Amino acid sequence: MKRTGSKVSIAVIRRLPRYYRHLSELRQQGTVRISSSALGKAMGLTASQIRQDLFCFGGFGQQGYGYNVEKLREEIGEILGIDRGHTAVVLGVGNLGHALIQNFKFGNNGFNVEAAFDINDEVIGTTVGNIPVYGVDELDQFLREHRVDIGVITVPRSVAPVVAQQLADGGVRGIWNFANVELKLENAEDVVVENVHFADSLLTLSYMICQTADDKETEE
Amino acid sequence: MKRTGSKVSIAVIRRLPRYYRHLSELRQQGTVRISSSALGKAMGLTASQIRQDLFCFGGFGQQGYGYNVEKLREEIGEILGIDRGHTAVVLGVGNLGHALIQNFKFGNNGFNVEAAFDINDEVIGTTVGNIPVYGVDELDQFLREHRVDIGVITVPRSVAPVVAQQLADGGVRGIWNFANVELKLENAEDVVVENVHFADSLLTLSYMICQTADDKETEE
Repeated sequence: MKRTGSKVSIAVIRRLPRYYRHLSELRQQGTVRISSSALGKAMGLTASQIRQDLFCFGGFGQQGYGYNVEKLREEIGEILGIDRGHTAVVLGVGNLGHALIQNFKFGNNGFNVEAAFDINDEVIGTTVGNIPVYGVDELDQFLREHRVDIGVITVPRSVAPVVAQQLADGGVRGIWNFANVELKLENAEDVVVENVHFADSLLTLSYMICQTADDKETEE
Repeated sequence: MKRTGSKVSIAVIRRLPRYYRHLSELRQQGTVRISSSALGKAMGLTASQIRQDLFCFGGFGQQGYGYNVEKLREEIGEILGIDRGHTAVVLGVGNLGHALIQNFKFGNNGFNVEAAFDINDEVIGTTVGNIPVYGVDELDQFLREHRVDIGVITVPRSVAPVVAQQLADGGVRGIWNFANVELKLENAEDVVVENVHFADSLLTLSYMICQTADDKETEE
């Protein structure tokens, strides 16, 4: 499916997964259709913002009817690539790697985890949540023999750049980076890196609790 | 310190931690000052966006000079509340709780983790990265006896709402929620909830690798 997606702003793109999440919740609750204002209220956006966002992707709403939850969810899921059968490998089977493999629903987001890699002899050769764990020295061969779309990096930040380059050289198309270090890849213009920065989220919370406290002081 | 912060849009607020992160990196690299266009380039924003954002908080730049990295970082850190001596407790010492306590730099973000809580007898009474682990039945008392600003929730989603309400009732001001479930708190208008949704990040990556592939097909 081709869309005008490449012209869409990164801010809109980043809201799409949130739409998908909220629509999935509405669907689970049995909601059949929803107005842009009700969807906006649930997501903290204005109705006009919602209409603008969805218009970028062809606009699915109908005047006076609102959006069909099931259909809009499906369309957004398709835009996000949930139906593409993406594959992933996890690099690093420490606490975070374990937590992701065992608790994060990769499947719900269209990803199948094919294998995990580590340097620790105690986990190599075992399985974690049905996923086989191989030694990192087997990564290159694995990438040659399997189509792997993304690598999930949960290794310590000191080794993350090396592992990331190995993934890029091995042909992955994306890297989901939890290592809290900027990855500068060589010969890999097409490889997309998505960084997860826990600190950004915690600092937003920090800001917000300060504001609440300040507002209270002002009232008193 | 009072600012006009409460009128600032959530989009700007969410960019502040990113400014802080980029400025911290620049400082580590020894950069003394930076223009709005160079800072914008590093962050994927326009120079005018940068000037607008920072103007919300009083505007720190100087025409023709740019921003003093150290000073701007300090000011943004202050706005974010990094100097407030915030305290945290971690609920759930499974894989994710372990990963956060052992690897996430709470201190760099102005938070001190005071204690962790779990229901598992095997971890209760131990320490993880110097943090004592107590039984969840000790949480109420702990909250009465200590000033705890935020609770970090890494428990399974089935029990997250109960734990969150307990934290709110115990007087925390914020909840950092990794449980991937919407928390509806009662009698807690002042308690800020910041949700970490791993899926939003993975789906953004999913979208972007699809775009790259589509662009390639178009070229071919």
